[in-house]
Amino acid sequence: MSGIPAGVVTLQDYEAHAAQALDDGAWAYFSGGAGDEITLKDNRRAWDTLRLQARVLRPLAQGHTRSTLLGHTLAHPILLAPVAYQRMAHPDGELATAYAAAAQSAGLVLSTQASVSMEQVARAIVSDPGRGPLWFQLYLQPDRGVTQQLVRRAEAAGYEALVLTVDAPTSGARDRERRTGFKLPVGVRAVNLDGLPAQPPHQLEDGDSALFQGLLAQAPTWSDIEWLQGITRLPILLKGITHPDDAREALRCGVSAVMVSNHGGRTLDTLPATAHLLPAVADAVGSSLPLIVDGGIRRGTDVLKALALGARAVMIGRPYVHALATAGALGVAHVIRLLRDEFEIAMALTGCATLDQIGPHVLHLPAPR
Amino acid sequence: MSGIPAGVVTLQDYEAHAAQALDDGAWAYFSGGAGDEITLKDNRRAWDTLRLQARVLRPLAQGHTRSTLLGHTLAHPILLAPVAYQRMAHPDGELATAYAAAAQSAGLVLSTQASVSMEQVARAIVSDPGRGPLWFQLYLQPDRGVTQQLVRRAEAAGYEALVLTVDAPTSGARDRERRTGFKLPVGVRAVNLDGLPAQPPHQLEDGDSALFQGLLAQAPTWSDIEWLQGITRLPILLKGITHPDDAREALRCGVSAVMVSNHGGRTLDTLPATAHLLPAVADAVGSSLPLIVDGGIRRGTDVLKALALGARAVMIGRPYVHALATAGALGVAHVIRLLRDEFEIAMALTGCATLDQIGPHVLHLPAPR
Amino acid sequence: MSGIPAGVVTLQDYEAHAAQALDDGAWAYFSGGAGDEITLKDNRRAWDTLRLQARVLRPLAQGHTRSTLLGHTLAHPILLAPVAYQRMAHPDGELATAYAAAAQSAGLVLSTQASVSMEQVARAIVSDPGRGPLWFQLYLQPDRGVTQQLVRRAEAAGYEALVLTVDAPTSGARDRERRTGFKLPVGVRAVNLDGLPAQPPHQLEDGDSALFQGLLAQAPTWSDIEWLQGITRLPILLKGITHPDDAREALRCGVSAVMVSNHGGRTLDTLPATAHLLPAVADAVGSSLPLIVDGGIRRGTDVLKALALGARAVMIGRPYVHALATAGALGVAHVIRLLRDEFEIAMALTGCATLDQIGPHVLHLPAPR
Amino acid sequence: MSGIPAGVVTLQDYEAHAAQALDDGAWAYFSGGAGDEITLKDNRRAWDTLRLQARVLRPLAQGHTRSTLLGHTLAHPILLAPVAYQRMAHPDGELATAYAAAAQSAGLVLSTQASVSMEQVARAIVSDPGRGPLWFQLYLQPDRGVTQQLVRRAEAAGYEALVLTVDAPTSGARDRERRTGFKLPVGVRAVNLDGLPAQPPHQLEDGDSALFQGLLAQAPTWSDIEWLQGITRLPILLKGITHPDDAREALRCGVSAVMVSNHGGRTLDTLPATAHLLPAVADAVGSSLPLIVDGGIRRGTDVLKALALGARAVMIGRPYVHALATAGALGVAHVIRLLRDEFEIAMALTGCATLDQIGPHVLHLPAPR
Repeated sequence: MSGIPAGVVTLQDYEAHAAQALDDGAWAYFSGGAGDEITLKDNRRAWDTLRLQARVLRPLAQGHTRSTLLGHTLAHPILLAPVAYQRMAHPDGELATAYAAAAQSAGLVLSTQASVSMEQVARAIVSDPGRGPLWFQLYLQPDRGVTQQLVRRAEAAGYEALVLTVDAPTSGARDRERRTGFKLPVGVRAVNLDGLPAQPPHQLEDGDSALFQGLLAQAPTWSDIEWLQGITRLPILLKGITHPDDAREALRCGVSAVMVSNHGGRTLDTLPATAHLLPAVADAVGSSLPLIVDGGIRRGTDVLKALALGARAVMIGRPYVHALATAGALGVAHVIRLLRDEFEIAMALTGCATLDQIGPHVLHLPAPR
Repeated sequence: MSGIPAGVVTLQDYEAHAAQALDDGAWAYFSGGAGDEITLKDNRRAWDTLRLQARVLRPLAQGHTRSTLLGHTLAHPILLAPVAYQRMAHPDGELATAYAAAAQSAGLVLSTQASVSMEQVARAIVSDPGRGPLWFQLYLQPDRGVTQQLVRRAEAAGYEALVLTVDAPTSGARDRERRTGFKLPVGVRAVNLDGLPAQPPHQLEDGDSALFQGLLAQAPTWSDIEWLQGITRLPILLKGITHPDDAREALRCGVSAVMVSNHGGRTLDTLPATAHLLPAVADAVGSSLPLIVDGGIRRGTDVLKALALGARAVMIGRPYVHALATAGALGVAHVIRLLRDEFEIAMALTGCATLDQIGPHVLHLPAPR
Repeated sequence: MSGIPAGVVTLQDYEAHAAQALDDGAWAYFSGGAGDEITLKDNRRAWDTLRLQARVLRPLAQGHTRSTLLGHTLAHPILLAPVAYQRMAHPDGELATAYAAAAQSAGLVLSTQASVSMEQVARAIVSDPGRGPLWFQLYLQPDRGVTQQLVRRAEAAGYEALVLTVDAPTSGARDRERRTGFKLPVGVRAVNLDGLPAQPPHQLEDGDSALFQGLLAQAPTWSDIEWLQGITRLPILLKGITHPDDAREALRCGVSAVMVSNHGGRTLDTLPATAHLLPAVADAVGSSLPLIVDGGIRRGTDVLKALALGARAVMIGRPYVHALATAGALGVAHVIRLLRDEFEIAMALTGCATLDQIGPHVLHLPAPR
Repeated sequence: MSGIPAGVVTLQDYEAHAAQALDDGAWAYFSGGAGDEITLKDNRRAWDTLRLQARVLRPLAQGHTRSTLLGHTLAHPILLAPVAYQRMAHPDGELATAYAAAAQSAGLVLSTQASVSMEQVARAIVSDPGRGPLWFQLYLQPDRGVTQQLVRRAEAAGYEALVLTVDAPTSGARDRERRTGFKLPVGVRAVNLDGLPAQPPHQLEDGDSALFQGLLAQAPTWSDIEWLQGITRLPILLKGITHPDDAREALRCGVSAVMVSNHGGRTLDTLPATAHLLPAVADAVGSSLPLIVDGGIRRGTDVLKALALGARAVMIGRPYVHALATAGALGVAHVIRLLRDEFEIAMALTGCATLDQIGPHVLHLPAPR
């Protein structure tokens, strides 16, 4: 399980290897989606369905993939999305992922539910001069004190931004996972939450709605964003914005960036593919608010299309976990490199020498009828 | 066959179990549709194809799923559609279904062709304070006296409304069922029709159309609705309205509600999916006439979409029969609970705390080209 | 091979039985199409894709399926299309087909390439009072004398119209058939052409186009229609018209009716489905020229849709040949009866009591976006 | 492996035989495409999806398929596209292809990377009076001296035009090929490049983009076209133009013709099908610049559609290589003949006697909604 298997030449080639390497429950947890996985499949298909327009004989010398984001220079626009419990995929877990990200200059967003502590991850790569951005993902916990402790630790450890996930006040029904009877294996847990107070269960009365009277009674709202801004000077990104009005509200709130995401198809099935959501969000907030998109990005052409539709950067999730399960840090690094190489070919063949030459014109739109 | 099988976490998971539990004929009868089952499949696919628009950070505290319909308070907008001969699925038949409906506060529409008498079903649940609406479905029989007897019995037994099925003056060609040579098993029959006069067969002349000279010679028309209104004070609902003009006529007649239904794809193949029919009907009668929709509802997201398109409530048919065949009353109750739970998650993730916050805006429409 | 097999309840159910009954070559000949069989499949799919609009509680008493066509009363609008070499499907060949057509009051169009003589077929049914129209199909032969002989014989035998096939100046590339190395079996031939002079082969020069210098050098044109009208008083129908301009030209020429046909997908692949061609042809010639459509009609709903789009009648081809191969005359009669029964159900459930109540309004069109 | 196998009656029938005849690597090399092969499949499907409009009874006598292109008379509009390393498919390689092309009067475009020398190929057919055009394909090499040597040799050998491939400044990621670990077999090489200086590898610095700092640093631009025009009097065609603006630029540069090509789906995946690209290019340059199209042409109907959309001729690639691998020169000749025969049938059945009667009107467009 240590080297890159023969014949693996694309991100998706890791999938079959990961399915072999993981037990049924872990495979369902990492690769499954909500409901009938319509959104999960749509995320992929939507990128595939977009068509590119080739250009020829344009000047490509001095081309590169550099840009800046929240003041950080990006060598390329690929980030690793927050994924929980990575030690379930590989003994080194998030640590392997972090080393690979740094080696390939990819941004890293660590999950609150990481199975390696946020301090250990940060320590491993924070002083690597070639690394990309290092961000910490969190949920607003019903107990603000808990949230505040997590924020303080993230600041202390050297994380450069907070990524607040706002699209999951309740977790979705991941039916594939439930059918396997998935449980976390012994020894894998959300170590960052060790020692924090558990949430008191709400007392239900007969006939009540379990959901509305329970979990949702304390679901966060826009006012909680203001509170969070008040307790930290780290830039705040909102992950899970897909409605133009929510993006406008995020802009008004003064957040630093927005992640257009449907949570990888893991919360509510039949949400649109992010490729279909991104244009309206980009229209709504223009260039005032940097957009990062995830969901189904598997190909360099997908990265190009995402940027053409208005994103500044993309995140990948499942592909690097599949590579982690297959080949550890080496696999994760390989995946980032493959995606970047494919992206550069896509730029060249559409005649783009730099990221700012990428725009809607690289997409081929069917002629109106 | 008594408990809920392992791995059943959605309505559709019951399907394979029911296919095992039932013999070929009964399976074809309950699950089959007319013709090539194009409408049957379309009903499902149409809900799947609609896309939802997530919203974030909206106030969800105090959320609930309550509404009122024909003066009855509904705990949630899920009803059980009339299905004939349920003792073919389970020895307890309609009685098991009724207990489950009452336990889960779901409305129940009993079929004229029930295999348990309407009085026995009503007696079982009519005084349960937590139950939902209790309605009786009927066809207009060629002999008005027969119809009148059924109405009197329904009134006496405590049924709160009459659901008149108007879309089946002839039964459809359910070819799958016919290929199995399906016949009702010994001991299962439409007990509510016991002792009522059989319809005299029409004498056909050579070369005549069997259908037009036979059954259809006495097909009911709009004037029969007036007659029915004249003999009962129960609210009358029409089941099987799909054309806006028919909905307008129903409104003019003063019926209490309309069920937008293509009979679950069991009458005429290539009728549109009800999800495609509902909007024009809703446009035609606005909020003047409550609409209930059935056909292919399998997911909480489907319920949300139905309400977004103008329905006040939904009915499910095959899913609860599959659960009945698999696990009796327990299965039926499980199905209602699963659907309600999924519906609440869908409400929460689209930012709806109550039913009246559900509207067309929860649907994501593709940008016009 | 004599009775109707168990489980055959639709036209398409005969297909598998015919595939068994016929050898590979005959099966490929009867069921195959041109090229990749895209048009063959489209013909079917196009009817399936159209959606009907149900209507309820309309007066259906006194309904019937009668109409008139070229002065003949049709009991129902279903005709049997010309199909060559039917003795390859069943020893009784066209004779069995003719008896079945007459018994079910369906119109019959006999192929020039019938394997039973046109006189024998006519003799069998011409004086049956319940029969439908009896027409003779022919191609314009390069030698006008040959054509004239065929016309005289058709007149003498009692055929009531001539159906001139105009869409096949060259036969299509039926690749499936060619792959089997299909040849007519001993004893099956186009008996109507016995004793007629064979067409002299054209001398090709090197590098010439085989097709244009050969067969097409004498392809018939519109002026040949005038010639044909000059030698007979039988009504002339043109089979294979699909372009509105060709339909207008046919009207100007004074032909009696037009068959909108792509030759069952047997000539040029990727021609549109006839369901997609019919509306523009109907628009072009309005009610001035009766239209008959064929291609993929398998269901009563297809018949209803064809009439809704402007046809006065429909023809079926492969389905009755499949039934002939499976069960002889009994099978052919069964197929006609099944289709008529399904058609009557479709009329009833869309609220049409007579053919003249069928119109575009029975089709459900998706709302404009 | 010498004769045409039984049952091969279409171009695509050769595919399965070639898959058998070739080893995995060669098969992947010849038949594979870039990425997920979406463009590869789209190329095919796009032609299939277009619908033709049949016409009847039009004058077809004196029909033919002749035209002129760059002053050369074409017996028919089918050319063989440049394909490298054909000795991998058959020991005779490009020589067999050339003989077949000449015998069937098809144009031949020899690849720079041919495995038989350009002089040997030209010598074999240049004085055949029945042959079609003979053109040489080349890439602009970073070292202009190398390019100039190739041009001089092409001129000397009798090639009548230069086909400059402009859509591949970097080769695409042909993942299927890479998964097989494909390497050229011993004895097969690009013999035309023997003795020419190899390109010096660029020195990469750490963290640099391999692609932009390497290969693309010397990618050709429009100014290189002018340089090429300055060193030869042969007509120059640009292969790989798909954007209307690039076509306009090509026209301004004074090139003789343009090949609308996505490199057979071998460079960048998710480029549109050429059938979808051709119309806008044709609109942009009108009749001023002859257009040749390739990509997915497998049927005579595809050729007709390509001409209807504005092409003067078409090229085929994989089909003739599959035939070469299966049956050598005989196979290649067979493929050309099959395609031409199918094309003539398609012309006849759409009522076109000559190429100039082919236009957009032979396509059937769906009615606007």
